[in-house]
Formats: sequence, C-alpha cells, structure tokens
Amino acid sequence: MAAALELFSTRDAEDVSIDDVASAAGASRALVYHYFGGKQELYVAALRSAAEQLESRLRPQEGGRPIDELASGLRRYFDFVEEHAAGFAALLRGGPANRTGEVGEIVEGVRQRLFRLIQRQMGVQEPSPVLRTTLRSWIASVETAGLDWLEHRDVERPALERLLVDQMVALLGVAAANDGEVAGLLHRLK
Amino acid sequence: MAAALELFSTRDAEDVSIDDVASAAGASRALVYHYFGGKQELYVAALRSAAEQLESRLRPQEGGRPIDELASGLRRYFDFVEEHAAGFAALLRGGPANRTGEVGEIVEGVRQRLFRLIQRQMGVQEPSPVLRTTLRSWIASVETAGLDWLEHRDVERPALERLLVDQMVALLGVAAANDGEVAGLLHRLK
Repeated sequence: MAAALELFSTRDAEDVSIDDVASAAGASRALVYHYFGGKQELYVAALRSAAEQLESRLRPQEGGRPIDELASGLRRYFDFVEEHAAGFAALLRGGPANRTGEVGEIVEGVRQRLFRLIQRQMGVQEPSPVLRTTLRSWIASVETAGLDWLEHRDVERPALERLLVDQMVALLGVAAANDGEVAGLLHRLK
Repeated sequence: MAAALELFSTRDAEDVSIDDVASAAGASRALVYHYFGGKQELYVAALRSAAEQLESRLRPQEGGRPIDELASGLRRYFDFVEEHAAGFAALLRGGPANRTGEVGEIVEGVRQRLFRLIQRQMGVQEPSPVLRTTLRSWIASVETAGLDWLEHRDVERPALERLLVDQMVALLGVAAANDGEVAGLLHRLK
C-alpha cells in the first residue's frame, strides 16, 4: 500500500502500472491483483489511505488560539500537498480519466471532515447558512490555492499560507457583516 | 441538442437515456445515435453547449463600474445555475460516474475564461502570483457557493450574491496588503 501511495503521489495515475506497484513493493504482479483486484481498485485504496493520512495529520495539536491552530493546520496541509504533488494535482484537476463515484466520495468526505474540524475548533454546534457557505468557500479556496501553487510555485509557501489565513479572517469578517450569528462568534473568538 | 441540454440540466446524467433525449427532441433513437454516437458523447456535447451559453451570458453588458459589472455577472451566473440545477450539481460534485478527461477540460476551460474575463474587467495585463491565486480562489468560492445553495437553498439568492461580491472586495483587500501590484490596482479601481 505504501508503495502504491508513493507511486500515485509522484506520478499521474495513468502512468502507474500494476507492474510498477508490484516491483516497488517487492511483490509479484499476481499478489497485487489478488489483494486489490485491479488498478482502479488499487488507486481507490491508495487514495483512501492518503485521505486518512491527511486527516490524522490535521488533527489539532497545540490547543492554542484558533487562528494559530489554523496557521499550523495549513502548514501541515501544504506539507501533505507537496509530498503528494502529482497525485493531488491530478485528482483535483478532475482526472484520472476513469474517475468513478467512489473517488468523488472520498474527496467529498475529506472536505466534509475538514469542515467539521474547523467548525469544532470554532466551537460552533450548528453553523448558520452564511457561516456554512463561507467555510466551504474557504476550503475550496485552499484546494485551489494548493493546485495553483503546484502549477506555478512562484509564491513562497509561508507567504501563501499567511495569505490563506488572512483570507479566512477577511471572509469571516464579511460573513459577520451579513449575519448576526457569525458576528457573535467572531466576538467570542477574539 | 436543446432537448438533451434540458434533460441533462434537470436530471442526473445517469437517469437520462438516449430514448429520453430522442423522444424529447421528437427524433428517432437511431438519429440521435447517428449524430452523437452514444450517451457519453451526447453528454459532452450538451455540456459544451451549456458552457458556451454560460460564457455568452457573462459577457459584460453595461460598461459600468467593475464592482457593478461583478454584481450583475454574478446574478446572471446564478440564473444559469438555477436553470441547470441538477446538471450543475452533478457535474461539480464530481459525477457523472464516467467522467472523462474531456469533461474535466470543459469545466477547466470555463474557469479559465471566467478568470480572463475578470482580469480584463480589472484592466490587468499579467496578474501577479498573489492576484492570480486570489482570483482563482474566488472563482472556486463562487462555484462552491452555487453548489451549497442548490443543496440547501436556505439563503436568499440576492443575499448570497451580495455576500460573494463582498468576499471579492475583502479578498482583494487581503491580496493588496500582501502585494504592491494589487494595492496599485485597487487604488486605480476606486
């Protein structure tokens, strides 16, 4: 599994064969087929394992102020993006060609768990519609910024991470101006 | 084509058959196959036509202030989202199951043309890295907000559109604080 994840992280899925995975894992092609059934199944298993790894890394570690937690979470998120560059870019750009419902569900599952993580960090039980759409938008921004960074790498990572933290603060400010609940929340977080 | 677009807009692609399209268009199943080759090809053709329609609707109309253009463009974008609700949601949630590279390319093409449209409206020749990632993030926010709105419909559309305009202003403010070029741009736009 680790060998498959490594290959799918560093190359486009279309360029990874079962033979590559078998030889990287020091196993036979037959054994890989036996355990996983085929390349698509292997890809889904690798993706699921990557998703779990990302989520375990993003678990809050410091018990600090929410804004510091956010900055440190973003740093760990970008560590992950950088380590799994090719796989992350291929996945979020819409490939691999045979993207099944299962792949979409894993991606959506990660987004939802990130959402709940942020929600918990903010101490919010039930987000208002404005807060919900704001947090989802920000998560989409982070994904997009990750993709853009992998494509161009013309901003320093720490600068980009700061930009995204500042974006969250600004977006919450906009949400607060439109929604009393978010205004109360921001007041408590300060 | 109009019949296919209507069906793919109002139902999940998996629930649309060639027979449905043929009967909605008053044509024979054989004729639809003859022109399009199959359901996936028909879906791609319908998607391409929807993308063209969206882009032609978003062409700037008023020659007003950029911020008013933005508000009016968002209104037309959400008109489109509302008319093509099921298709828009299925597409951006990651389906249909057999998402080929072609579908991903059409979606990415729309994003790129929206990007250039906004860039032109701002009078920017070559966006700086910070401006580029900010505009891409905002476009991702708008897509995500559209999806969230279709799922929940618990915010009034005009309120959501205002929220997104305010988000753009706030995100440009954050970008300006981090990047001299954007600061100069904002100064000119005011």
